Amino acid sequence: MSRTLITTSIKAELRAAQLKSRLFSRPGFLIRRLHQIHTGLFADETAQFDVSAVQYSLLTALAEHGEMDQNTLALEIGLERTSVAEVLPRLEARALLERKRSPLDGRVKLVKLTRLGGGIVKRMDAAVQRAHDRTLEVLPESQRDVFMLQLIRLVEANNDQSMVPLRMR
Amino acid sequence: MSRTLITTSIKAELRAAQLKSRLFSRPGFLIRRLHQIHTGLFADETAQFDVSAVQYSLLTALAEHGEMDQNTLALEIGLERTSVAEVLPRLEARALLERKRSPLDGRVKLVKLTRLGGGIVKRMDAAVQRAHDRTLEVLPESQRDVFMLQLIRLVEANNDQSMVPLRMR
Repeated sequence: MSRTLITTSIKAELRAAQLKSRLFSRPGFLIRRLHQIHTGLFADETAQFDVSAVQYSLLTALAEHGEMDQNTLALEIGLERTSVAEVLPRLEARALLERKRSPLDGRVKLVKLTRLGGGIVKRMDAAVQRAHDRTLEVLPESQRDVFMLQLIRLVEANNDQSMVPLRMR
Repeated sequence: MSRTLITTSIKAELRAAQLKSRLFSRPGFLIRRLHQIHTGLFADETAQFDVSAVQYSLLTALAEHGEMDQNTLALEIGLERTSVAEVLPRLEARALLERKRSPLDGRVKLVKLTRLGGGIVKRMDAAVQRAHDRTLEVLPESQRDVFMLQLIRLVEANNDQSMVPLRMR
């Protein structure tokens, strides 16, 4: 098939799919739905651990980087500082992490994983991978790579515009 | 380029992009980020109206379908009933919608747009369209269609599995 024919057939397929719901013409709506679906799959696969997707992001950032201050941690996973400040006490109450004031600057709060926290990150790994895999599994394998690449492009290109930019290496 | 060569080059490109952040290997993380970015663009474009993306979904569903009961409205936009019950009073306080008990069944609450609510939906239209366009604008136009089609496939295929299935025509 020529490139023009492929493009035409994609346009026709898209138009047909969009007849099913008016909301299917809005990327923002589809992205919210897919986020909801992934959160559901994550909860389903990791139910026994009682750790949400956002809590898990936070725990894995600490597992990778060791002790960090709260604000750096927020930047690392692209979450608002207030959300991080809300989530941390719950994880601390479960003894998955510890917080203390920085000895250098009393206004800075340092966070690190406990041994229990490090353990749960490791034990959750396979279940989390299944949740990610299930989120994309209806796409043929070759299309999954294309979709991931497009997601990365969109996230990267808009990173500076978003209210909470993500730190890049 | 042959199909195999294209696939190989996409794989290589994906691997290179994923070196920038470990989080770029997790579809769930990228989807959460993109949702955050779209919400930011939506807030940016529609600031003068003070209506969030979720509130707008709800108002447009009412604009399309007329008076509805609260639970049908939740299904229509794939939101949890509790979220809808949280959002409605705020819109009611701004006189954008009205609620009343159903005369047929006192447990059912009926919701409809006011004239003011209908007006705001219309006046927001262009700004909302810009937010949706900006969310995908970094992708070349032909890729945008592919991305939309993949989003629809993922959302449709997982619809029944999610906690709040969306009503399809």
